[in-house]
Amino acid sequence: MKLLYEGKAKKIYNSDQSDQVIIEFKDDATAFNGLKKDSLDGKGKINLKFTRYFFDLLHSHGIKSHVVSFLDETTLKAKKVDIFQIELVVRNYAAGSICKRLGFEKGIKFSPPMVELFLKDDSLGDPLLCKSHLKYMNLIAEEDLLFIEKQALKINDILIECLDSKGITLVDYKLEFGKAQDGEILLADEISPDNCRFWVKGTMESLDKDVYREDKGDLVQSYGRLLEILGI
Amino acid sequence: MKLLYEGKAKKIYNSDQSDQVIIEFKDDATAFNGLKKDSLDGKGKINLKFTRYFFDLLHSHGIKSHVVSFLDETTLKAKKVDIFQIELVVRNYAAGSICKRLGFEKGIKFSPPMVELFLKDDSLGDPLLCKSHLKYMNLIAEEDLLFIEKQALKINDILIECLDSKGITLVDYKLEFGKAQDGEILLADEISPDNCRFWVKGTMESLDKDVYREDKGDLVQSYGRLLEILGI
Repeated sequence: MKLLYEGKAKKIYNSDQSDQVIIEFKDDATAFNGLKKDSLDGKGKINLKFTRYFFDLLHSHGIKSHVVSFLDETTLKAKKVDIFQIELVVRNYAAGSICKRLGFEKGIKFSPPMVELFLKDDSLGDPLLCKSHLKYMNLIAEEDLLFIEKQALKINDILIECLDSKGITLVDYKLEFGKAQDGEILLADEISPDNCRFWVKGTMESLDKDVYREDKGDLVQSYGRLLEILGI
Repeated sequence: MKLLYEGKAKKIYNSDQSDQVIIEFKDDATAFNGLKKDSLDGKGKINLKFTRYFFDLLHSHGIKSHVVSFLDETTLKAKKVDIFQIELVVRNYAAGSICKRLGFEKGIKFSPPMVELFLKDDSLGDPLLCKSHLKYMNLIAEEDLLFIEKQALKINDILIECLDSKGITLVDYKLEFGKAQDGEILLADEISPDNCRFWVKGTMESLDKDVYREDKGDLVQSYGRLLEILGI
């Protein structure tokens, strides 16, 4: 397999089909745009388990993702997509950057959920984007943005229903979407505690990457605990 | 006179009328949210001259400001207003933070002009605000925001027409608005090279606070040169 791209958490290889790629989940944990970095044994495997669980759940509700099939413990086969250079963050409760940036008190509920856009550009530190910026940047067509925003909120409803019943609060999460060669827009990347905040319901106890960001304990252990709670 | 408030560039005193205040323009120059700070002899006087010139110009075109009268070289009398905790930045060309933040090349023209909103909060470093944030913050009514955005673009047309005829490019500027006790929304603060970027037409030569921010020369001298060019 030829390595096409290596990111902070994944390696992407070509596959035997020109419109598909193989994605390998790495054990690397990073935070603060790569300033903090570690290799945590088993993390790739765990995140693939979460992604499989959530993508299967979403698929059963009609949300299409780039996944074609799960190959082994750390790899999946996916449709080749052009990833939009925009990250969507959906926030049900205030935590992380929105508190530091705009002064919201941690734990405040956003109703309706807040949707923020960020430019996917490590060299600029993934800066906040307003919709008003988009007309000056060739990032995404207006109707495509509307579609992915709608998908992000549908995904929110599905995830909340699942998680709430298991005693987990979905605080916020980051999504990426891409366009397949046939023009279809697909959910891409992953859904795991690396790009979501999960709190034990009724508390602000993190079972997500904040454990690593804020040195609050052992990340692999926390992720493992969440796997158990979700029955994965 | 009783000092009501002292900011980075102005002191505000009560006046003999309860709905009016006296505003004194200080000689202090600050940049980078106060990290760089100097007292520059004559700066207050010069900025008041600019503000008088631009506010008079705008007034002649029907834009109402908080100014009641200009008292002396460094003070003016103004209607007491509740300043909206939002700063509007209108950008005709890319310069400053928009280049660092989103990677726009310096000097790129924005057509139509870009309007950005910032939360007026020094402790948070005046962060970028998207319209989507506003529904979670009690900062401004929707119709008031629409009004000040419209005013900001009207002001843009008036300023550009004046400046262009004198060989100056209006790159960008920051405006503040407030609500008077009778509910009228008025342009407030100042219009000077402290909150505008002015370039010598056809070049990127700054006649504004970038001279100070970027240590490109003597600020008072540059501001003086602009006064001359504008015939103030």
